[in-house]
Amino acid sequence: MKSVTLDVIKVGDKAEFEKTITETDVYMFAGITGDLNPAHVNERASSETMFKGRIAHGMLSAGLISAVLGMQLPGPGTIYLGQELKFLAPVKIGDTVKAIAEVVDVDREKNRITIKTTCENQKGKVVLDGTAKVMAPVK
Amino acid sequence: MKSVTLDVIKVGDKAEFEKTITETDVYMFAGITGDLNPAHVNERASSETMFKGRIAHGMLSAGLISAVLGMQLPGPGTIYLGQELKFLAPVKIGDTVKAIAEVVDVDREKNRITIKTTCENQKGKVVLDGTAKVMAPVK
Amino acid sequence: MKSVTLDVIKVGDKAEFEKTITETDVYMFAGITGDLNPAHVNERASSETMFKGRIAHGMLSAGLISAVLGMQLPGPGTIYLGQELKFLAPVKIGDTVKAIAEVVDVDREKNRITIKTTCENQKGKVVLDGTAKVMAPVK
Amino acid sequence: MKSVTLDVIKVGDKAEFEKTITETDVYMFAGITGDLNPAHVNERASSETMFKGRIAHGMLSAGLISAVLGMQLPGPGTIYLGQELKFLAPVKIGDTVKAIAEVVDVDREKNRITIKTTCENQKGKVVLDGTAKVMAPVK
Repeated sequence: MKSVTLDVIKVGDKAEFEKTITETDVYMFAGITGDLNPAHVNERASSETMFKGRIAHGMLSAGLISAVLGMQLPGPGTIYLGQELKFLAPVKIGDTVKAIAEVVDVDREKNRITIKTTCENQKGKVVLDGTAKVMAPVK
Repeated sequence: MKSVTLDVIKVGDKAEFEKTITETDVYMFAGITGDLNPAHVNERASSETMFKGRIAHGMLSAGLISAVLGMQLPGPGTIYLGQELKFLAPVKIGDTVKAIAEVVDVDREKNRITIKTTCENQKGKVVLDGTAKVMAPVK
Repeated sequence: MKSVTLDVIKVGDKAEFEKTITETDVYMFAGITGDLNPAHVNERASSETMFKGRIAHGMLSAGLISAVLGMQLPGPGTIYLGQELKFLAPVKIGDTVKAIAEVVDVDREKNRITIKTTCENQKGKVVLDGTAKVMAPVK
Repeated sequence: MKSVTLDVIKVGDKAEFEKTITETDVYMFAGITGDLNPAHVNERASSETMFKGRIAHGMLSAGLISAVLGMQLPGPGTIYLGQELKFLAPVKIGDTVKAIAEVVDVDREKNRITIKTTCENQKGKVVLDGTAKVMAPVK
């Protein structure tokens, strides 16, 4: 794992991570966070909602964004300052989510990097949109 | 679990959920999200950082917020529209995190509820701050 | 659990352990090892490979061998010295893998036991082949 | 995640992944593989052995090697053909294991890559040694 340090990170840098979200993921996420909302862990109740079944936690998809930032861009040594998230569409169990990070602004003096963060499902539909603020690791 | 429906939810409504974050939580969260950043799973490397050891993923604390919103306020039936997060201080393994949600604005016509969301550690230090936008369940 | 101690272990001794490999197994294994290779956790990407979908980690099958050696033959007290592995065919999620251990050489003086180790799927196809070297527990 | 494809992979290429092995890792690995050998999950019994307590499964460290090969070198698209492992020293719960992969031979015609694989603990002690054979992804 190599970091993209402050001296080299630039607008347009891009990275992504893709994973199929399983029932196991959703149930373990529910256990870790305490979010056992019926939408996530109750097939009977959730099948009667507009989503027609259990959906993954929005924060689970947000976690994939965290993985891209912390593992790849800028990578190890990154300080995560903030994140804006818009949950645009549900992620169903079995969907494959791609988290994409793209640098849109670099303030090298203050070490403030702005990254556009998007999650798409396997059909290319954007399920989550937002912006991250991070400090890049210094060489 | 009872929901606080659109007709009754009001500014000042408050709910919270508190949990001690364990090594198990952090490691399972790493596995689910793919975020095995050394800051989270490498004691040797992380002990040399300013945080002096492994810290929890910021999104794990954000997951506790999701738990308060989805389980209590407004509770089951809530549609999570968006979340702003500021990561203000690290959560160490063994810290007890309290996620607090407080309604700060209710637009009953459009069904847009604005909720101040905060996570504190066991010392009362705010580790995460932000705002959630949700749709409350309709009676 | 009884061990087969150095004084009684002999060429031809055999033991096996069989388990259906689930999506949960594969996802937890990915989290533990950090091996979130798309072949294991990305249904979209892996469905485009020659394996036509997600496959289990080879080392997960190898773990079943470790279970036979450590639990049965020679069992508790065994010191695992080495293992050669050949990955011959993929294990798909839902496959039932049988790990088989058979003693092929006993050097009682040096306490070096050579064990042929094989994993088969539910169709009898060998998916993994190899040889283990262990020290048997001494009575 | 980018792969190091057959046309560019060369002797001397190196990658590593490091992780602190926790009790959670060992217990989940035990559950996945069925290897509930007392050496791994019985503190009372294992404290009376030469290792003075529970140790991680050798195959768990081997899994970190698999992570380096499948995620970094050669990365996604790699076909894992075989692995030789020598277990040289125990990994205790809480140890930080670094898996290191270094290309030592490239047969570009047959697409057979030989990789020296080593796991070290936080003190630099080699706990596992061996050689992997893989096919690199083709551009």
